Amino acid sequence: MRDLIILGAGPAGLTAAIYAGRYRMDTLVLEKAAPGGQILLSASIENYPGYPGGIGTAELMEKFRLQAADTGVVFQTAEAGGVSFEDGAVHIETTEGRFSARSLIIACGAAPKRLGVKGEKELTGRGVSYCATCDAPFFRGKDVVVVGGGDKALEEAIFLCEYASSVTVVHRRSELRAAEILQEKARARAGLKFRYNAVLEEIEGKNLVEAVSLKDTSSGEKSSLSCRGVFIFVGIQPNTSFLRNQLQTDESGFIITGRGMETSREGVFACGDCVSKSLYQVVNACGEAAVAADSAHKYLIKPQKSPAFKPEG
Amino acid sequence: MRDLIILGAGPAGLTAAIYAGRYRMDTLVLEKAAPGGQILLSASIENYPGYPGGIGTAELMEKFRLQAADTGVVFQTAEAGGVSFEDGAVHIETTEGRFSARSLIIACGAAPKRLGVKGEKELTGRGVSYCATCDAPFFRGKDVVVVGGGDKALEEAIFLCEYASSVTVVHRRSELRAAEILQEKARARAGLKFRYNAVLEEIEGKNLVEAVSLKDTSSGEKSSLSCRGVFIFVGIQPNTSFLRNQLQTDESGFIITGRGMETSREGVFACGDCVSKSLYQVVNACGEAAVAADSAHKYLIKPQKSPAFKPEG
Repeated sequence: MRDLIILGAGPAGLTAAIYAGRYRMDTLVLEKAAPGGQILLSASIENYPGYPGGIGTAELMEKFRLQAADTGVVFQTAEAGGVSFEDGAVHIETTEGRFSARSLIIACGAAPKRLGVKGEKELTGRGVSYCATCDAPFFRGKDVVVVGGGDKALEEAIFLCEYASSVTVVHRRSELRAAEILQEKARARAGLKFRYNAVLEEIEGKNLVEAVSLKDTSSGEKSSLSCRGVFIFVGIQPNTSFLRNQLQTDESGFIITGRGMETSREGVFACGDCVSKSLYQVVNACGEAAVAADSAHKYLIKPQKSPAFKPEG
Repeated sequence: MRDLIILGAGPAGLTAAIYAGRYRMDTLVLEKAAPGGQILLSASIENYPGYPGGIGTAELMEKFRLQAADTGVVFQTAEAGGVSFEDGAVHIETTEGRFSARSLIIACGAAPKRLGVKGEKELTGRGVSYCATCDAPFFRGKDVVVVGGGDKALEEAIFLCEYASSVTVVHRRSELRAAEILQEKARARAGLKFRYNAVLEEIEGKNLVEAVSLKDTSSGEKSSLSCRGVFIFVGIQPNTSFLRNQLQTDESGFIITGRGMETSREGVFACGDCVSKSLYQVVNACGEAAVAADSAHKYLIKPQKSPAFKPEG
């Protein structure tokens, strides 16, 4: 039986793999699609330390993958459908069969949250998008709306200015949450406008997006804004439904962890965007992943050592 | 008054600076020497995610520094001698005068621990060293001893093989703590030997190191090993004496923090090698630093906002 399964190959999963591989743990990395994770929904990243001026996310994730592969860990494409715990081992049911190991690191990330408004589901892929990097070129010379007020919303709004003729950021509050540097960059963009205190109530269109219905949160006044694209960045939801409540999570499904990234079940650790925490960034996902791999390593060597072994300190 | 002072410009301090600068906090970074920190005691780093094949630590730290400087934060060379808290502000007494700010991130790192044996202090710089990167070239063609069994000890022992004619790793336990990949690399080196269950009791020599006295922890037998260099890697001690017990620390002086990297004093945060934790690596120091900067930013905007402001969520 393997020492460790890592679920997910985004920044957290790949960092855990780098550390586990260097500890020479027999490690299998399961990823439902290509390595990279949610960060690939952005074109580039400016705040990962070590890359002044920023780096393309695909290039950065390929570096992570290479660094993990260099340590000898094994990668397998498979989507987890369920997990069970028997005989001191972890068993993962996937699209490619069952995989078992003595310990588990969950780094399965998160996905963009849906707004839940009328027209959103029907028009996804027909003007509604959660990935500017993927879809921006389809909106060359067109008017688009961005929903949200955090870092991600502004980063993507700025990126969309390269293609769209106008970008309107719709935010439900009177102030943005995004880092000031992003607010400055956004304000400096011609063609980028802001609608504060506004919520999107409906996305209109027959086969393609034609307009959005907005409501002013102060006056209650309703209005319609013509557009061809709606990019939604209103937070994330963890990819943890396959766990079926077998680990302690917060009310949104983010996994509760201790300082060593241990979960409520022995031998199971979690890191990255699927855990409950105050900041969702690549660099702290990676830091948590190193800690998770170290904790898994300590967990595995502990019960097996001869009585002569004494932990350091 | 400034928003934030960051003490230290190693990986943690520089990452905190990148984040604080991007939040447009008015930030001063104080560093006693050149930016880079303790990591510069190693020549290269292989496990910082994003650099397959490894990168020189000086090159990596220059990238961090550039990325921080690009955000507009201000750097000042000054060594902190004391800290006080008055009128809701933090005041740092330094070799270059007094600096004040509304919040503080302590990222002052750690320094190599001394063994505390006879001859160690007297022969430091005369054969006793805590930095292979700095001193290895002085031991070309000579016999050296490395004390320790963790990652750092093996990394440096491997590096020393490039210069020394023999490298003997002396470790007090029967097994190494270092990552398996490092143990494999070390065992593959001709000229690298191990002495397990051995403690170093004295470093001998008149003006320069001539030998070390060893004691076998099982048999109690004593022996002498001729050598010209002794490289000591037995852990770290935090650079926190300037705090003079004004923050809660563990018994070794490492600062106790919460999940948001907050310390026992409001408005004061800590990250990196100076905090109490299970793993001391560059990548988790950086992750903690991003969290510390985010927490400082939240702390600063909280009491100042108009009543209309509501935190997200």
